[in-house]
Amino acid sequence: MKPIDFAELKVDALLITWLPNVRYLSGFTGSNGMILATPDSSTLFTDPRYTIQAQEESRTKVRVAKGPLIKAALESIKRKRLKKIGFEKAHLSYETFETLKEGLPLGAALKPTAGVVEKMRLVKTPEEIERIRRAVLTNSAAFASAVKTIKAGVKETDLAAEIEYQMRRHGAEKTSFDTIVASGARTALPHAQPTARPFGNHELVLIDMGATQDGYASDMTRMVFLGRPDAKTRKMYDAVLRAQLSAVAAVREGVTARKVDGVAREELRSEGLDKEFVHSTGHGLGLEIHEAPRLGKKEKTRLEAGMVVTIEPGVYVKGLGGVRIEDTVLVTKTGCEVLTPTSKELMIL
Amino acid sequence: MKPIDFAELKVDALLITWLPNVRYLSGFTGSNGMILATPDSSTLFTDPRYTIQAQEESRTKVRVAKGPLIKAALESIKRKRLKKIGFEKAHLSYETFETLKEGLPLGAALKPTAGVVEKMRLVKTPEEIERIRRAVLTNSAAFASAVKTIKAGVKETDLAAEIEYQMRRHGAEKTSFDTIVASGARTALPHAQPTARPFGNHELVLIDMGATQDGYASDMTRMVFLGRPDAKTRKMYDAVLRAQLSAVAAVREGVTARKVDGVAREELRSEGLDKEFVHSTGHGLGLEIHEAPRLGKKEKTRLEAGMVVTIEPGVYVKGLGGVRIEDTVLVTKTGCEVLTPTSKELMIL
Repeated sequence: MKPIDFAELKVDALLITWLPNVRYLSGFTGSNGMILATPDSSTLFTDPRYTIQAQEESRTKVRVAKGPLIKAALESIKRKRLKKIGFEKAHLSYETFETLKEGLPLGAALKPTAGVVEKMRLVKTPEEIERIRRAVLTNSAAFASAVKTIKAGVKETDLAAEIEYQMRRHGAEKTSFDTIVASGARTALPHAQPTARPFGNHELVLIDMGATQDGYASDMTRMVFLGRPDAKTRKMYDAVLRAQLSAVAAVREGVTARKVDGVAREELRSEGLDKEFVHSTGHGLGLEIHEAPRLGKKEKTRLEAGMVVTIEPGVYVKGLGGVRIEDTVLVTKTGCEVLTPTSKELMIL
Repeated sequence: MKPIDFAELKVDALLITWLPNVRYLSGFTGSNGMILATPDSSTLFTDPRYTIQAQEESRTKVRVAKGPLIKAALESIKRKRLKKIGFEKAHLSYETFETLKEGLPLGAALKPTAGVVEKMRLVKTPEEIERIRRAVLTNSAAFASAVKTIKAGVKETDLAAEIEYQMRRHGAEKTSFDTIVASGARTALPHAQPTARPFGNHELVLIDMGATQDGYASDMTRMVFLGRPDAKTRKMYDAVLRAQLSAVAAVREGVTARKVDGVAREELRSEGLDKEFVHSTGHGLGLEIHEAPRLGKKEKTRLEAGMVVTIEPGVYVKGLGGVRIEDTVLVTKTGCEVLTPTSKELMIL
């Protein structure tokens, strides 16, 4: 892990309040914690519920505070006579900013910073890649088990329950996000929550699922068809698959994120389906399910070996339905490794 | 639902960015949305992934924005010539605050507000209570099914998987929080995540679980003992149970939250266990698993009929173990209704 560059940030200290960043820097997995980092030392602040756990997990010093953590951090700022304190502007609420500002000692000042730890997290360490790899395998194994339960009459929520159970059984500690199971015309809702709707014959099922294992996320979308797909569905599926494969083929160190997005979009344009592709092509993942870089139209970030991103074009046609196909891929020097082992053929049941 | 009192807030408009508040006001359940509310009308802003869903769900007007929602809200602020715009200071990041401030038209100003919609959410409507009631029953039914799988050798993670599966099967759309299953000395960690540790004979198991159904949360903690409990464990259990029952008996409209907390703490003090009670006695729940009021030492809020809170004292002794017992209860004019039907006897397996 590259250390925080306090000189470049022009601060004496950095207050880290975003839990995934806290975990990244300290190893602490609790739900309440913040880190005050200085060039000499880092302290994790947490509450008494986590006294034992923080001592076990944290690589930094631990301070257990009885009241709000921000007050304990302020005391530390005073005691250490820190003058310029950076904070995470995307993750500090205006309210906590106010408390911090009002509690600062005379002569001390705050400085908003953006993405300091997130940038450190962009390129994954070998250990992180190993964890993501395991989360992806758990996800695919759970899919393989759960997909066997699909048949007409089974409800979207039943399948979601089965998927989440299988992810757990295969080693996940939780889902990376609310499992999406949508069937029939509901597949046209890109972020549909599963309902009590039973699967019918001759319809599409969209499954978007992710397993978090040892803190790291995975993300996969696959489509199932119950019966024999009609020509329209087949055409839509094939177009999205071509877009997905083209985007995967475009991934390698040095290429911009928007270039990869453009490749998927161009492929769909040739089928007149680009207007139905209403989201970006993918996103980084790791300790969070959505991390930088975003693979969107305007994103200029250049991919680097060791980044892990999703590739997930989709098209959504109101009334008819939608198709999305998504893998988790590891960027390499010469291309990428598709971590997701599940077949991308339209699964016919 | 009581309307927002713009005159009292001294604003022309209120920007609502916290998703549970967005859902409360509009019915929209997506993961990206904000509301610009004025005395005349409210508009929900969301992104193209939710075009169809927002139209189906939202009781307010919908505007689908292609870029950041805050930019679309700013355009609306300009067009409507709004002058004083309130924002949710606990939920707006400093970064979004900055964007908002920099994008404001000349002559317009921002005003931080605190807990406006949260206060509306304190007392639940009959429909909300019905949903919480169902979430609580789902939770207890899932517990009754899952608890049968407990025996020596079964892993904490296996039980967590079973619990979450059963919650889903009984109608939950997700867990209200990461299920806690801790066994043996790990019960002394108030917020332990389940591990691959197998249950042993003669040990405690702590289960803290919650089901979210139709958007509303439930929360319950129960203890199981494998074998015949030793005297120390029995004593600890009985003390916590007495504290829990005393606190439940203290709940009624008009009593302060801290009074209820004090009753539980006093009961544990008489056993010399108050120092091991390292968290507050409970919290409100509803669209979120943790809502106001907090039942803590310093909380002066007076309970009102229609509030729903947890009562969950616990003691944690490093090396030995911990005990927590938790119900979800509905405050009434004359006392409270314990919604959780599961027995609070120490379950011996």
